Amino acid sequence: MNLRDYLVRQQQLVDAELDRLVPPETSPPETIHRAMRYSLFAGGKRIRPILCLEAACTVADGTCGASTAACALEFIHTYSLIHDDLPALDNDDYRRGKLTCHKVFGEAMAILAGDALLTRAFEVLSVMDSIPADRQARMIAQLSTAAGTVGGMIAGQVADLEGEGQPPTAPLLDSIHRAKTGALLRASLRLGAICAGADPGQYDALSCYGEHIGLAFQIVDDILDVEESSEALGKTAGKDAQQHKITFPAVYGIGESRRMAETECGRAHDALAPFGARAHRLHELADLIVRRKS
Amino acid sequence: MNLRDYLVRQQQLVDAELDRLVPPETSPPETIHRAMRYSLFAGGKRIRPILCLEAACTVADGTCGASTAACALEFIHTYSLIHDDLPALDNDDYRRGKLTCHKVFGEAMAILAGDALLTRAFEVLSVMDSIPADRQARMIAQLSTAAGTVGGMIAGQVADLEGEGQPPTAPLLDSIHRAKTGALLRASLRLGAICAGADPGQYDALSCYGEHIGLAFQIVDDILDVEESSEALGKTAGKDAQQHKITFPAVYGIGESRRMAETECGRAHDALAPFGARAHRLHELADLIVRRKS
Repeated sequence: MNLRDYLVRQQQLVDAELDRLVPPETSPPETIHRAMRYSLFAGGKRIRPILCLEAACTVADGTCGASTAACALEFIHTYSLIHDDLPALDNDDYRRGKLTCHKVFGEAMAILAGDALLTRAFEVLSVMDSIPADRQARMIAQLSTAAGTVGGMIAGQVADLEGEGQPPTAPLLDSIHRAKTGALLRASLRLGAICAGADPGQYDALSCYGEHIGLAFQIVDDILDVEESSEALGKTAGKDAQQHKITFPAVYGIGESRRMAETECGRAHDALAPFGARAHRLHELADLIVRRKS
Repeated sequence: MNLRDYLVRQQQLVDAELDRLVPPETSPPETIHRAMRYSLFAGGKRIRPILCLEAACTVADGTCGASTAACALEFIHTYSLIHDDLPALDNDDYRRGKLTCHKVFGEAMAILAGDALLTRAFEVLSVMDSIPADRQARMIAQLSTAAGTVGGMIAGQVADLEGEGQPPTAPLLDSIHRAKTGALLRASLRLGAICAGADPGQYDALSCYGEHIGLAFQIVDDILDVEESSEALGKTAGKDAQQHKITFPAVYGIGESRRMAETECGRAHDALAPFGARAHRLHELADLIVRRKS
């Protein structure tokens, strides 16, 4: 199967599982389930879930029930977008070309929908019955740390907010992005690895791969914000500069940023060496992340 | 030890454990840890943690490591207060006589501090090493469901928001309060029971007790909002009526509400029968909940 067909199939698999794991819109209180589903099915590329599933397949044969973990990652990612878009934070009206959650459902419901997706992520992991309980606990530990305040997503968000208007320095940039995007991308690989029963060597290799594609992903994100139109991105372009955010192009310039993304991508490839040909999809996904246009 | 001394000792125990489980204010990003700690140590009575610890002691000898579960409950409770107080929700400036989190740290930081406490609740449960992993998973399942959108805290919050201005009916009132306060209070007992390895009979008895004191707690809360001054409550009194909230006094009147609280309290006592004298603190706590003045 070529990469394009593979991605479509995986996205469909993830979407079906997400649909199964969130109460229907007709389930009361209807509004909150409508708001959760609105943002969950607003055209996300499912990068984190696909990485999680592929990590599991690279370690074992089949996904080993990692589709639940894949959805938990997407719940966390979606909650973070809903809360980041709120007026009190980034104040964004559009995301992926659609109105943001609070523009459609109001601020109160958007806050609660984010809370609900965050809560649901841990709930679905805690009731998985296809894997041993110690793996459930390890996955929840990794996911919560990746989402948290010590080197995790919330730490990155706070550093990002507080960094606005500060002189853009390399160490500050590095710490923001490792936390803000890197931690959850790395956790995507780790959850797949844990679910499939990876040995410590496999776990470390996948973590290392995740760390490097995480950084590459964020560098490319920053470059796209400068280079692409709002239409192509589906969100307001040029917003980073406007909000005086600390970005890779602001610190290193566009050319050097692009070289750095390639370097990170190369390191991600190297990390996969222990898996040989089993990791061919992960190699393809690394290249895709660096070469994407939106 | 009399009840008063017992409560002080338990509050100190919980406070020490909360302090241990949240990064210090000096740990970067400092602001988020300051905001989390501000609300966490703003004078809460620690009712949920104390119920959790006492449930564990009633089942086994000692707390069986339930102090971590006790803190997870307080994290969830505190996150819910921070988000409920936001301008987009209840828009409260004071809580327990102190400025609310968003008045001190701003809306963005208050949203993130709530998110962080919610996340941390699941993190601390997932890394407990004193109990078997299947108990960790069961506690996380119970806590996330109690906080969630299907009969849990978020469901109650949504129903409450959407119920404002609607005719106050008994079924609506019942469903709001079971979800909004009842689910987490019941979970407090359940987490203690699971932690201590309760058998199914003990688990059901403690759940039943939790359900009835949960309802009693909310009825008393509604009565206090009508009867007490803002000064005594430490928050704006009379706010329920002002916001056209559906409350027990609005549906049943004050006298009947008070009788209902006593009835629920009696049922809670009855549920403890299987434990005999072991449950004497839980009996005292039920009475305390119904007779409290703030």
